[in-house]
Amino acid sequence: MSNASELIGLDKAKPPFFVGVDVGGTNIKVGLVDDEGRTLSHLSIRTLVDRGPEDGAERMGQAVKEVIAAAGLRPADIVRVGLGTPGTMDVPKGMLLEPVNLKSWRNFPIRDRVAFHVGLPVTYANDAKSAAYGEYWVGSGRNLHSMVLFTLGTGIGGGIIIGDLLVVGEHSHGAECGHMIVDYNDNARVCGCGHRGHLEAYASATAVIKRTEEALAAGRKSSLSAKIEAGAELTPLLIATEAEAGDTFALEIVHDTARYIGIGAVNMMHVIDPSGIVLGGAMTFGGHGTALGRQFLATVKEEVQRRALPIPAAKTTIDFATLGGDAGYIGVAGLARQENRRLSAGPPK
Amino acid sequence: MSNASELIGLDKAKPPFFVGVDVGGTNIKVGLVDDEGRTLSHLSIRTLVDRGPEDGAERMGQAVKEVIAAAGLRPADIVRVGLGTPGTMDVPKGMLLEPVNLKSWRNFPIRDRVAFHVGLPVTYANDAKSAAYGEYWVGSGRNLHSMVLFTLGTGIGGGIIIGDLLVVGEHSHGAECGHMIVDYNDNARVCGCGHRGHLEAYASATAVIKRTEEALAAGRKSSLSAKIEAGAELTPLLIATEAEAGDTFALEIVHDTARYIGIGAVNMMHVIDPSGIVLGGAMTFGGHGTALGRQFLATVKEEVQRRALPIPAAKTTIDFATLGGDAGYIGVAGLARQENRRLSAGPPK
Repeated sequence: MSNASELIGLDKAKPPFFVGVDVGGTNIKVGLVDDEGRTLSHLSIRTLVDRGPEDGAERMGQAVKEVIAAAGLRPADIVRVGLGTPGTMDVPKGMLLEPVNLKSWRNFPIRDRVAFHVGLPVTYANDAKSAAYGEYWVGSGRNLHSMVLFTLGTGIGGGIIIGDLLVVGEHSHGAECGHMIVDYNDNARVCGCGHRGHLEAYASATAVIKRTEEALAAGRKSSLSAKIEAGAELTPLLIATEAEAGDTFALEIVHDTARYIGIGAVNMMHVIDPSGIVLGGAMTFGGHGTALGRQFLATVKEEVQRRALPIPAAKTTIDFATLGGDAGYIGVAGLARQENRRLSAGPPK
Repeated sequence: MSNASELIGLDKAKPPFFVGVDVGGTNIKVGLVDDEGRTLSHLSIRTLVDRGPEDGAERMGQAVKEVIAAAGLRPADIVRVGLGTPGTMDVPKGMLLEPVNLKSWRNFPIRDRVAFHVGLPVTYANDAKSAAYGEYWVGSGRNLHSMVLFTLGTGIGGGIIIGDLLVVGEHSHGAECGHMIVDYNDNARVCGCGHRGHLEAYASATAVIKRTEEALAAGRKSSLSAKIEAGAELTPLLIATEAEAGDTFALEIVHDTARYIGIGAVNMMHVIDPSGIVLGGAMTFGGHGTALGRQFLATVKEEVQRRALPIPAAKTTIDFATLGGDAGYIGVAGLARQENRRLSAGPPK
């Protein structure tokens, strides 16, 4: 579900206003939200990584001005801008370090350069953590006191919020839930980061494709083989399609993936013990909108019941995210709002 | 190292004052500390579980009065009492639920009964989390902004503090770090809780003994066999003694245990990303005080270097706890101090 379909007019919006900028490897989403996290205007621009980071920062500044104008506001009406980027990054310094999906933007002081181009103060955060905060503020987690988000995509991102505290970590590595070791053994699967046994090595899109390829190469029968021979690319979407069409093996891959996610969820329940776990990202097999998505969620819950301690097993909610691709800009706008409130309140006692 | 050896006189102490009560299965430690976490007086009483929880609460009340008198103070000089107990428990309700080490005290409203007997308000917390807060406040973590404590004993407890926030969890199950799944496979070791693959199933004292017994039964040569045949009980202490005497197998058990702890530490570095990891409890093989303890710590660090992402691997400190058996009462007194400050500050804005 996209929040963008529910734009709110300026007449009904509640100030103060914030703009969120969510930088991805392909697109940058920019949106203007009110004090209750409702979107007044938004747009997407291409990231165009090859043009370099300064060009990107300048175009982000331009896009921020455009969404402000589109909402019928002036730059002076905006209190603060939020900027979310993929890692690695140094959050306190506002620096991109070695971002895998923005390779040529490395070691760039993106927070301050975007602030320069928009002429407003900027709050800087990790993109997955921003999306988590968005879901916590106005999405699937809006009624939760604390929440863990798993972002299921090419990799597995995470976000942890405990009573309005976003767990950033001391070295900007908090909530890297995809890099939990769930199999310490020497023969465990190798993660994209190079280490063994991480959750991401089992349940990311990359891992799902790898597990499927290995099983097919080992002779598992599946309708996937014919599709691949006919030229189709092996993707989680193809696996989902074949699973929905009744292919036993493809369905098994989906359920196994759910079980790995359940294992990750249990670890977060025993470490953080949140009110709820939220599953977002592209690889949720359609979410509540498809029978396969609902089966996926049911299997995650089943694995949690099998493995979690009784009280968290009984009490922790598990559900899909609801903001879709808008979670990032809404969430980072929310973090800008949070920082503004903190600064307005003065130093802690 | 015990804090008790460094009692501070009333003339040098800084008010306000707090009393911490740390309830264990065998003994209850009670101590009076000042606003900087320094102990003025302390004592231990027997838990005497079989006499029932009301008798225990009454004797705790008496012990609190005794440490107050011993410090040269009156009950009116104490602002608040902290009470820490082993789980399971419902922290907001102040209830013991099904405590494994206090079996006949189940479903007892211990916070309010202790408050009744001492005539002072009581802050209630889990014992391992209290010890973590003690180390954070005035112990090994006193210079850390955030910290994860592993308490290595019969089981493995945990504590997480992020910038003065103690992670209690929504259902009093936060920081159950011993119950992280580190091996999801069906043949993984079984934990005391009945589930498979938990860190505690590999690295607790119980698990260390089990791993040792299995290897000896499978024919591993070790000086331990002769000791056991001569009537010695197989304990971590015996394993440590034989390892220090040069037994290769006993030393291997110690190092393997350190590697499991390193795996748990890596998971916390990727989820919490704390300033530092602290290792406490009885099973730290002598800590900094022995060559074996120092080897144990070195191997934990080696495993972390092998498995952690580069930035946390480079920046996260790992060290032993320093408060020993006093961490619990000091920490829970610190939590009482924290609650008092929160209540004094009024509602959040």
